[in-house]
Amino acid sequence: MTNALPIIAPRKDGRASDELRAVTIERGWSEQAEGSALISFGRTKVLCTASFTNGVPRWMSGKGKGWVTAEYAMLPRSTNDRMDRESVKGRIGGRTHEISRLIGRSLRAVVDMKSLGENTIVIDCDVLQADGGTRTAAITGAYVALADALEWGRSKRFIGQNAKPLIDSVAAVSVGIVGGVPMLDLAYTEDVRADTDMNVVVTGRGLFVEVQGTAEAAPFDRRELDALLDLAVGGTSTLTELQLASLRG
Amino acid sequence: MTNALPIIAPRKDGRASDELRAVTIERGWSEQAEGSALISFGRTKVLCTASFTNGVPRWMSGKGKGWVTAEYAMLPRSTNDRMDRESVKGRIGGRTHEISRLIGRSLRAVVDMKSLGENTIVIDCDVLQADGGTRTAAITGAYVALADALEWGRSKRFIGQNAKPLIDSVAAVSVGIVGGVPMLDLAYTEDVRADTDMNVVVTGRGLFVEVQGTAEAAPFDRRELDALLDLAVGGTSTLTELQLASLRG
Amino acid sequence: MTNALPIIAPRKDGRASDELRAVTIERGWSEQAEGSALISFGRTKVLCTASFTNGVPRWMSGKGKGWVTAEYAMLPRSTNDRMDRESVKGRIGGRTHEISRLIGRSLRAVVDMKSLGENTIVIDCDVLQADGGTRTAAITGAYVALADALEWGRSKRFIGQNAKPLIDSVAAVSVGIVGGVPMLDLAYTEDVRADTDMNVVVTGRGLFVEVQGTAEAAPFDRRELDALLDLAVGGTSTLTELQLASLRG
Amino acid sequence: MTNALPIIAPRKDGRASDELRAVTIERGWSEQAEGSALISFGRTKVLCTASFTNGVPRWMSGKGKGWVTAEYAMLPRSTNDRMDRESVKGRIGGRTHEISRLIGRSLRAVVDMKSLGENTIVIDCDVLQADGGTRTAAITGAYVALADALEWGRSKRFIGQNAKPLIDSVAAVSVGIVGGVPMLDLAYTEDVRADTDMNVVVTGRGLFVEVQGTAEAAPFDRRELDALLDLAVGGTSTLTELQLASLRG
Amino acid sequence: MTNALPIIAPRKDGRASDELRAVTIERGWSEQAEGSALISFGRTKVLCTASFTNGVPRWMSGKGKGWVTAEYAMLPRSTNDRMDRESVKGRIGGRTHEISRLIGRSLRAVVDMKSLGENTIVIDCDVLQADGGTRTAAITGAYVALADALEWGRSKRFIGQNAKPLIDSVAAVSVGIVGGVPMLDLAYTEDVRADTDMNVVVTGRGLFVEVQGTAEAAPFDRRELDALLDLAVGGTSTLTELQLASLRG
Amino acid sequence: MTNALPIIAPRKDGRASDELRAVTIERGWSEQAEGSALISFGRTKVLCTASFTNGVPRWMSGKGKGWVTAEYAMLPRSTNDRMDRESVKGRIGGRTHEISRLIGRSLRAVVDMKSLGENTIVIDCDVLQADGGTRTAAITGAYVALADALEWGRSKRFIGQNAKPLIDSVAAVSVGIVGGVPMLDLAYTEDVRADTDMNVVVTGRGLFVEVQGTAEAAPFDRRELDALLDLAVGGTSTLTELQLASLRG
Repeated sequence: MTNALPIIAPRKDGRASDELRAVTIERGWSEQAEGSALISFGRTKVLCTASFTNGVPRWMSGKGKGWVTAEYAMLPRSTNDRMDRESVKGRIGGRTHEISRLIGRSLRAVVDMKSLGENTIVIDCDVLQADGGTRTAAITGAYVALADALEWGRSKRFIGQNAKPLIDSVAAVSVGIVGGVPMLDLAYTEDVRADTDMNVVVTGRGLFVEVQGTAEAAPFDRRELDALLDLAVGGTSTLTELQLASLRG
Repeated sequence: MTNALPIIAPRKDGRASDELRAVTIERGWSEQAEGSALISFGRTKVLCTASFTNGVPRWMSGKGKGWVTAEYAMLPRSTNDRMDRESVKGRIGGRTHEISRLIGRSLRAVVDMKSLGENTIVIDCDVLQADGGTRTAAITGAYVALADALEWGRSKRFIGQNAKPLIDSVAAVSVGIVGGVPMLDLAYTEDVRADTDMNVVVTGRGLFVEVQGTAEAAPFDRRELDALLDLAVGGTSTLTELQLASLRG
Repeated sequence: MTNALPIIAPRKDGRASDELRAVTIERGWSEQAEGSALISFGRTKVLCTASFTNGVPRWMSGKGKGWVTAEYAMLPRSTNDRMDRESVKGRIGGRTHEISRLIGRSLRAVVDMKSLGENTIVIDCDVLQADGGTRTAAITGAYVALADALEWGRSKRFIGQNAKPLIDSVAAVSVGIVGGVPMLDLAYTEDVRADTDMNVVVTGRGLFVEVQGTAEAAPFDRRELDALLDLAVGGTSTLTELQLASLRG
Repeated sequence: MTNALPIIAPRKDGRASDELRAVTIERGWSEQAEGSALISFGRTKVLCTASFTNGVPRWMSGKGKGWVTAEYAMLPRSTNDRMDRESVKGRIGGRTHEISRLIGRSLRAVVDMKSLGENTIVIDCDVLQADGGTRTAAITGAYVALADALEWGRSKRFIGQNAKPLIDSVAAVSVGIVGGVPMLDLAYTEDVRADTDMNVVVTGRGLFVEVQGTAEAAPFDRRELDALLDLAVGGTSTLTELQLASLRG
Repeated sequence: MTNALPIIAPRKDGRASDELRAVTIERGWSEQAEGSALISFGRTKVLCTASFTNGVPRWMSGKGKGWVTAEYAMLPRSTNDRMDRESVKGRIGGRTHEISRLIGRSLRAVVDMKSLGENTIVIDCDVLQADGGTRTAAITGAYVALADALEWGRSKRFIGQNAKPLIDSVAAVSVGIVGGVPMLDLAYTEDVRADTDMNVVVTGRGLFVEVQGTAEAAPFDRRELDALLDLAVGGTSTLTELQLASLRG
Repeated sequence: MTNALPIIAPRKDGRASDELRAVTIERGWSEQAEGSALISFGRTKVLCTASFTNGVPRWMSGKGKGWVTAEYAMLPRSTNDRMDRESVKGRIGGRTHEISRLIGRSLRAVVDMKSLGENTIVIDCDVLQADGGTRTAAITGAYVALADALEWGRSKRFIGQNAKPLIDSVAAVSVGIVGGVPMLDLAYTEDVRADTDMNVVVTGRGLFVEVQGTAEAAPFDRRELDALLDLAVGGTSTLTELQLASLRG
């Protein structure tokens, strides 16, 4: 931590302001998908599955490139109060669209579509239980599922033996200013109290893929922004290690 | 088994024709819902949550009666091939509607709406992994979630201390004729080969709530129908014991 | 009638408990469709049309097999109180889906898709007036429309001269327990009072295609189930005769 | 006929150019609706039902006025080629909207909403068989259903005994220029060949409610327009007599 | 003016009853579209753009003919009270459909589809500000956009150098009877007071393409109809001149 | 400019890398809306209207607070290739949702909802012509429309005379790294070539409301991020001046 803002504690769950919640990754949770991971950030649980299809949508075919996309959704009672299903409402809400697009962009940032070849991978991230940080857990778990699906594709010879479609790893974490204090990996009760909320997606090499900061209650200055970015880089570095450990495991 | 049809074996997974798959019930899986159960019938896994709301929809209010309803859905990659999300398609398919309605009717058959009082319980059954029998697993798990939600309502005094809203328990199982042999609790590979497929919902006291038999490949005669009903009554009797054990646990 | 349950009468319309309502079949009602029938079960009137198309949907082509499907709908003022149109609501309700699927499965059970060849038949069943039993009247009338459409296909040489796509006939009837008495072919006022309601689809040879029993108010035991099945077999046997008479006429 | 355009014949069905097809009105066809008529213009058959509800939509209440509206639809196989259902497509097409609105406006033109009082009448016009002129048949039949529903409302004392909500009658007919000849009441095969097509709605007193002329193939001049209006006034005059005869009958 | 009805004035904005509002046409408003015009009828402003595509929809291809279609919409705050967006409501209203179809038919009436060849032109008419007469302003402006798009197509050699796809020009105006007086080009406050409202589409040669008269408050007689048609022919004649001037400009 | 990255030029339109396009604001463009502005960033043109309604949605009433929300849309031919209308597709796309939400959050960040009182303001931002930066132009123009609508509310005494609902101003600009060079206010052709694209929303006082950076082609490091933020702060500072000048004008 390089900034000069106060880092007082303790948080409700006893964490330091720069501490992640307990993170677990159950790799290969699904017996059907080509890659999968059930990831937990504390009480937040997201099931990520990767579906590998040989071939690409018609509008992409013949270019020798692949495609990776993602869909995010929440179970109706993943939250404290039950939400109506989007299938019942007949339309997908703006937040869902936004997060699905964010996950897809984040994953594509670390895939070389030429090396993938004309193959399609769809990542589904379904939130089974929500306690803040569902989108960042989704991205972090989705990477593990993606990596396994790519291995599956290689084993089936849909991807060349020398091709290296993964050019980096990717993980994400939320940060925010709560009660004047920059904090890492907000739980739901922290998130609703945050003045500023930021989701940061960082590659294994430490480069930024997405920075999405929003002043929920009060605009923020450059010093606060810097402090949040520092926290995020630290958090995603830890998540990268956990991803690699899981993939080695 | 009281009928005279051939009961040759073995099934692909080694079960006898009148044997259930391994059934597990993780009661209280969700930390948010008033009642919940993650139920497995072999590889089929369904997360059932019960959401208790004090009050009823406007069109029911003032009658002193409650309401119980259910919604069923499958995760897109719960199946061998990924299915499009119904939220993305913008409409719920016929099969989903049909099963949601079946689960709701089955649960209402064992609830005394007067004793429930003006409270609403919504049961969500989300299939995390599908290998045949998802609707019957859903009903069986939903009963456990429902029972806990009712206890929660009693503990919060939304339900009277002497009220007995549960008048019976309810469980369900699929049966079918596969290769000429009546079989209990079909796995997916058996289901697709079945000449006749039947879902039977039975109360703890052994009364029928639903009998839904369909000749998929060949119409069936009365003797076959009787054999299937016998198998179903046996299977649901075992499921009833597992439900009670889980609720005691 | 082989069961020992009480068969007291009279019903509101004077029928015996095992008696059908007056059934009429106006074959060839439509001047446009390849097959059609306006069928009445008492005051229930359903217009069934069969549309024959040479060819099958793309996903089925090249397999040498045909396809039969059905769509059910009610006119908005077919009922006592006007219902909103599903086209206006922008979505088809669960009940409509369920019945459309039931009709389609029932018809396919008596068609040999290989003999039909690569032809598609769509059966539309539109309820002009509803007084209970609309789905069973629809199935019974749809068979007549289907048979005529198959003849039309043969006359146009889309179906081979020696092909026999119809392997049996099919009819359906509702049965239920009303006031403790098992009854055949429930009118609307009986249906709403029924403890148990069952729709049974039976072929001309007396085999079951569908058995859909639902405990509306009280679960039912095996003896009651048997009584209902007996009634249904008797009723569909009479309907089969009426279908054949109509097709000869 | 007062215009000087050529009136050569014969038409395919032998009619003179200023001759209606055979028109029949089966008043009271529905046993459920407060008013109904099954009207035929030749092979075109439209079932019109009028649903009377005491009360008006919330946005109209308290003004002492009623409301009359209409919905038009075609059965999928009312036409030569089967059309997809609008309920299945999930949206109502432009043509359906347009005709529903036309029927509603036409009926409201002859109803005094103050005399109707706070009552709502919904007219459903469902085309059972289509051979041109479905919208004009619908308007003509709808008037009969409307008149009966108003009588029903009076008999139930929802409408005052001295109130005269019907200030005129209304009927409609299509006219067009086919092969250079102005013709009355076009059948489908004439309609598709018409250079100009016009639907005219006229009250019993001979006043215009709607004039909707469209140059399908060639713009028309003032003399042609006048000839078409003359034909339409003659045709609707005959339809008015048939309506009155039906209502007396 | 050839009729004998009273032509008293003045109108609220000082116009004579047979006088158009100030009409301006900003041709080429859009830097992106192949043809465009921002047209004003007084305070009514409609942006018309024409999009030229080489090729036709699949169902039309191979016939050597083109297609012209139109879409009309209003910005949510083009009106005095904000309207919900149709995209948000998820469905297009009947009025929008009706006007889109009217514009499309009006334009197609002056295009020779054979000369257009297999090209498609989509005209978008978006109402930026509404004060009555939006559909007639749209048609009048759309013609200018269409003419420029056709020139563009010729310059790109998608249309043959000698082909004359435009066989006439087309313009439209509203007329109505307000306070007993036939009036030309109704502003919004006149439109809501009109007994009868008529939209008339006329070619540059003075032939009728569409005549759509509706009795909003009182049916109209033949003499009134004639007076309205006279006004409309006069108004569209002036609009034709303005179109030609704009296209020469 | 405080960063050390190369700032080579020239850009296609001759701008320096830290130079805005020509910005114009036509305040009060709409004669209907309570506040409006037609804003241009070069060829990008967005019509922003603010609709003021006394009262709030039911779920907010009684809290003494107001609400500000926004909707963004593009005309179908605002772009180089025509896009289908979202109203025709029947659903709003993810990008549209995302931008509407962004605009709403940005405006709410500078409004004190208590001072606004129970009033609702809906801002519509309709893109008439698009050439990059439509969302940032929309936010910048929306602020002007909002300010005028608040004045209107004050003049009508819906807002107290001493209330100060506007606590700051807000403007937005896009920045990006194109060909390795950080650039301000990207035009469309620059945007598609950008490695990284960032939209930054800044208040008049220089505080951040939103920072949304996305690595389109290559992840970015901290130094690049800093350079982009510097450019954005400079650009929004200029936009703030233009907004104030427009509101004074």
